[in-house]
Amino acid sequence: MSLESLFNPKSIAVIGASTETGTVGNDVFKNLLTQGFKGKVYPINPKAELLLDQKCYPNITSLPIIPEMAVIVVPAKIVPFVLKECGQIGVKSAVVISAGFKEIGNLDLENDVKKIASENGITLLGVNCLGIMNVQNSMNATFAPKMPKAGNVSFISQSGALCSAVIDSANEFGLGFSKILSTGNKTSLDEIDILEYLDKDPETSVIMMYVESITSTNFLERARKLEKPIIVLKTGRSNEGQKAASSHTGALGGNDQIYEALFRQSGIIRAYTISDLFNYAQAFSRNNLPQGDKFAVLTNAGGPGGLTVDAVEISGLKMAQLSQKSIKELGSFLPVAANIHNPVDVLGDARSDRYAKSLEILLSDKAVDGVIVILTPQSVTQVVETAKVIANLKLIYDKPIIASFMGDVAVKAGKDFLFEHNVSQVNFPDQAAYCMSMLYFRKQFLDNRKKLANIADNVSEKTRKQIQKVIQKALLENQKLLQGNIADEILEAYGLPTLKKSVARNSEEALIEAKKIGGKLVLKIISPDIVHKSDAGGILLDVLPDKADSGFQTIIENVRLKAPEAKIDGVLIMEMAEVEDGFEIIIGSTNEGNLGKSLMIGFGGIFVEAIKDVTFSLGKLSIREAEMMIERLKSKALLYGVRGLPAMDIKALIQSLIRVSELVTDFPEISELDINPILILPDGKGCKVLDSRIILG
Amino acid sequence: MSLESLFNPKSIAVIGASTETGTVGNDVFKNLLTQGFKGKVYPINPKAELLLDQKCYPNITSLPIIPEMAVIVVPAKIVPFVLKECGQIGVKSAVVISAGFKEIGNLDLENDVKKIASENGITLLGVNCLGIMNVQNSMNATFAPKMPKAGNVSFISQSGALCSAVIDSANEFGLGFSKILSTGNKTSLDEIDILEYLDKDPETSVIMMYVESITSTNFLERARKLEKPIIVLKTGRSNEGQKAASSHTGALGGNDQIYEALFRQSGIIRAYTISDLFNYAQAFSRNNLPQGDKFAVLTNAGGPGGLTVDAVEISGLKMAQLSQKSIKELGSFLPVAANIHNPVDVLGDARSDRYAKSLEILLSDKAVDGVIVILTPQSVTQVVETAKVIANLKLIYDKPIIASFMGDVAVKAGKDFLFEHNVSQVNFPDQAAYCMSMLYFRKQFLDNRKKLANIADNVSEKTRKQIQKVIQKALLENQKLLQGNIADEILEAYGLPTLKKSVARNSEEALIEAKKIGGKLVLKIISPDIVHKSDAGGILLDVLPDKADSGFQTIIENVRLKAPEAKIDGVLIMEMAEVEDGFEIIIGSTNEGNLGKSLMIGFGGIFVEAIKDVTFSLGKLSIREAEMMIERLKSKALLYGVRGLPAMDIKALIQSLIRVSELVTDFPEISELDINPILILPDGKGCKVLDSRIILG
Repeated sequence: MSLESLFNPKSIAVIGASTETGTVGNDVFKNLLTQGFKGKVYPINPKAELLLDQKCYPNITSLPIIPEMAVIVVPAKIVPFVLKECGQIGVKSAVVISAGFKEIGNLDLENDVKKIASENGITLLGVNCLGIMNVQNSMNATFAPKMPKAGNVSFISQSGALCSAVIDSANEFGLGFSKILSTGNKTSLDEIDILEYLDKDPETSVIMMYVESITSTNFLERARKLEKPIIVLKTGRSNEGQKAASSHTGALGGNDQIYEALFRQSGIIRAYTISDLFNYAQAFSRNNLPQGDKFAVLTNAGGPGGLTVDAVEISGLKMAQLSQKSIKELGSFLPVAANIHNPVDVLGDARSDRYAKSLEILLSDKAVDGVIVILTPQSVTQVVETAKVIANLKLIYDKPIIASFMGDVAVKAGKDFLFEHNVSQVNFPDQAAYCMSMLYFRKQFLDNRKKLANIADNVSEKTRKQIQKVIQKALLENQKLLQGNIADEILEAYGLPTLKKSVARNSEEALIEAKKIGGKLVLKIISPDIVHKSDAGGILLDVLPDKADSGFQTIIENVRLKAPEAKIDGVLIMEMAEVEDGFEIIIGSTNEGNLGKSLMIGFGGIFVEAIKDVTFSLGKLSIREAEMMIERLKSKALLYGVRGLPAMDIKALIQSLIRVSELVTDFPEISELDINPILILPDGKGCKVLDSRIILG
Repeated sequence: MSLESLFNPKSIAVIGASTETGTVGNDVFKNLLTQGFKGKVYPINPKAELLLDQKCYPNITSLPIIPEMAVIVVPAKIVPFVLKECGQIGVKSAVVISAGFKEIGNLDLENDVKKIASENGITLLGVNCLGIMNVQNSMNATFAPKMPKAGNVSFISQSGALCSAVIDSANEFGLGFSKILSTGNKTSLDEIDILEYLDKDPETSVIMMYVESITSTNFLERARKLEKPIIVLKTGRSNEGQKAASSHTGALGGNDQIYEALFRQSGIIRAYTISDLFNYAQAFSRNNLPQGDKFAVLTNAGGPGGLTVDAVEISGLKMAQLSQKSIKELGSFLPVAANIHNPVDVLGDARSDRYAKSLEILLSDKAVDGVIVILTPQSVTQVVETAKVIANLKLIYDKPIIASFMGDVAVKAGKDFLFEHNVSQVNFPDQAAYCMSMLYFRKQFLDNRKKLANIADNVSEKTRKQIQKVIQKALLENQKLLQGNIADEILEAYGLPTLKKSVARNSEEALIEAKKIGGKLVLKIISPDIVHKSDAGGILLDVLPDKADSGFQTIIENVRLKAPEAKIDGVLIMEMAEVEDGFEIIIGSTNEGNLGKSLMIGFGGIFVEAIKDVTFSLGKLSIREAEMMIERLKSKALLYGVRGLPAMDIKALIQSLIRVSELVTDFPEISELDINPILILPDGKGCKVLDSRIILG
């Protein structure tokens, strides 16, 4: 599927171009004709002769040429017909603006459209969308009245209405756009197709995205490979939000924590507010990534400086410790009352020269990875001169610089100068710190990308086939819930440590098996007739191996006494888990449809109820990803050894996580898996699965 | 101290008025003379005859009248002299703009100024400040060049530089101002003095405040009584931020969690970003408080609607469940594709009539406590008409309404209309939800204020005197660390349950005392010669009362055998704490200087290290405040009974918290107190202090 014909068509037919002003069919044609698009544009309208002085054609087959793209604005039920006509003559791409499909329940109609596009090799955007703009070549194939300034940011939006607000606000945030498109119902083209195209587009440096759900398959694997920064805003953080988003496009909002994992693992920057979406995009579009996490703040006002330092630390970055040389140089020309340590306060009476010297010192200091420059408008402040100083130094130094000229009228000329000269500018300096933290997140991701994606196959093909048989057998027998021995067998095959156990039929066997297992043991009666084993005296705890024969006898005698009629199949001899030496951990997995299998890890026992300390990931895990799941647990300190407790065997837990991720991704048949708990023991002692269940479906 | 002469002086002398343009002394005089102030303004400058055509006077004593206020802009070292002159002739208030005091280490000079003001009854603002504006009477006694639009918001700022940025941005955020002042070094006047004045000022409805530290005493008690909403932005959330703020005014930033408690307990709204400060102030200045926490969202775009629903839920509010009547009415005129449930989506082609009908239905629905109205600019959108609809309905209904017209140029006329007609408008609709949550926080605070402030004296004067003696004796003996019996005595006197204990000198006494205590007991040898009691067989656990005599014998025999030379003073018989039945809780207190005594509660044991689950408060607690400290614990669910564990005795824990708060506030001599742990037991079984220490100082 080539998207070039969608973004750069040489000729366009507007099917449903209307002579009535104020209609979508009229707006789209007018926008294409009058806003500077260099290609040919043809109106298709069987009822009109002329539209804006252009000759109308009754249908696409009557055109003098074959247009590369069609924009379709006819009623929904006619769309399949006109799309088929497009296919017949060889139109390469189509934008279906028309609504009235899946979003109001017309699934069949939508599937028809999908099928026709696919059969005819048409690249289809929509249905039910605003259209597409290529600002760089003045193509406005939408019904939004105006295009924003041209620039290097592209925007993909699941909401058409949001596009118009974004376009209108772009200037205020200093953003220039390359491509803007609304995906609508994503009937054919979806996010990842478009992302991959834009990643190669030389006119795009940063991609902004608004989504309600991701419908692509293999999104994680494909998105992780992209080179350009992607900033996403997603609704559905709350349950109600999910409902609201889905009611308007017919999309199913997924669990937000799953999306959180998806974005983090694929190196996508997540914005939580519209204003963050703008600010982050602007920061990425005008800056290199920082080499490290240490930043300097340069200000002419202490208060905003302090707020920014707060934001630097809260966002996980650090304030740079300036070199002695820098401090000395700053001290050589700044007034006594100035702060020559980071944050550098050049004071309210600073003119642009103080900013110039100080900023150059900070940028040349090796301890500084980037600088936030704050300006408040005081009576002597040289707003535009200071903007020039920053723009000039930005040409020389590679480090990211984000300015915050605070205020409105008094600083407007300075803001405009910065915007025109490729310098980031945000309204409030605390936002600059959050932008820097996102640049650094991306830097870390790129540095770690190889490690993150380094997924090994730990399980042999033979093992896989063996487990495949076990699962197929269960499915054949319509057994969906796998527990006990069968769950243990599957987990063991994938290298997960379960409790050692054996069955003894007499006291001699008990002794032999017990010695094989070793350590403290649990003995349990095996009988189909005894429900409450404990009440029947059918369980013995803390049995040492050399007492297993007498233990066997005791259990048999107990049970014969309490339940003389019960059929006895033997005694289960099982390794005893030393719960008090470790921590109970839970591991779970669910099927997240097109997003793949999720994996969850958390603290078990009372921690689950009390603090819900869990983290998520998607797909088959690398070692680094498994490590990061554990590092993100709030109570992780418990595993590192606190208050005299020993450090736990984190390596073993990481292995277990990786193996579970391998198991659930190897078998699509596994719809749910719960290990609750897996016991993590002190370092060197490993983990033990105490209980588990697997649900097929 | 009357502040009227500071905010509304009839005449002003500018001491240090300068003829040189671009100086502070020139700016201040010019601002007072030329920006519409109706009172008399006199320049004081011994070296000039005329300034802006006004006669200059050599000093304040040579003026024809006694000015009500003096603005002082002379060098720091001359300030005491001119201030004394002011005092001599009866000037009522002074604004000292001059810098060069505490902030650069000149503490003595600052103290001189403070003393002179106090001795002469001068209300003193500053030193080292930007000055004061009363926008309502056009008095600009600052060196900031312009005043913002007049309105009902007042602003107190510890940073002068921030004032100028705020003034410049005000219009953009639709804010109008009444009084603006910068507190500088707070040499004499501090936050609470000014807050109390503004709370009574008929021209002020909302107070915005920027602080680096609160230096007032009794701030909590006094602020809690104020009627008007106060929104505060405070630096120093991070450690580095505290340093940054303090380096520029010489103020000592306190622990941010203590400030968090201070603001929450006094009903002050805390903003974490400058943009929140503006948005909250605007929301409060134009709305009544909501009666409940259920809100409706009205939008012409699904995406922004979903983002807003997310924000509603994340901020702790709820989406209103519309009445059947409302749903039916909405369904009667909205298109089929519209969402007639909350969030109500009137679709992209909505004109103002759909907004009008829908908004009226939502406002009249009893289930709705307030409405967020979102507008994105689509081709048919009637921006100004829709603004009018909102403004008109706001006149009729009391419920809060916050609009978010998204975009810039396309919606500007609508935004301006809203601003001019007293309707809240924020740039992004998620911000509207956060604003609503602050309105609701304030509503809850006012509803609960009586309860929150309902502090009882639980401890009798006799007990207080008894403990006073204990503490004085310890101080006399230079004993600063109180532990064991003496700490127990103090805590017991204040009604905190410590472990029951008694000393027996023979086995008969042991039996009698053990029966008095009851339950399982610990027996411990008392001997100055035995350090490791356990090694010497000097401790017995789990002793039942009727075995206490034989237990006594056993201990004595054990010790005689292992340490025949040891002097034996008897055997301690102590109630045994059943740790496994409950949870270990920690309670602590520190001295936070002018803010009073802090109180901390948290989970003990491994929870402390693992998740630092603690909450803070200040001062003597009411029952409601103590309850809220526990409700804010992340792991509070553990106390309510989870996973088959019983519910814990929360009432007893609340009593303990209240008693500790009473103890530490009764005795300023207590600089630190730690109860680690106090055991909370199942409901009805109370709490037990297991270990504690008190530090005097």
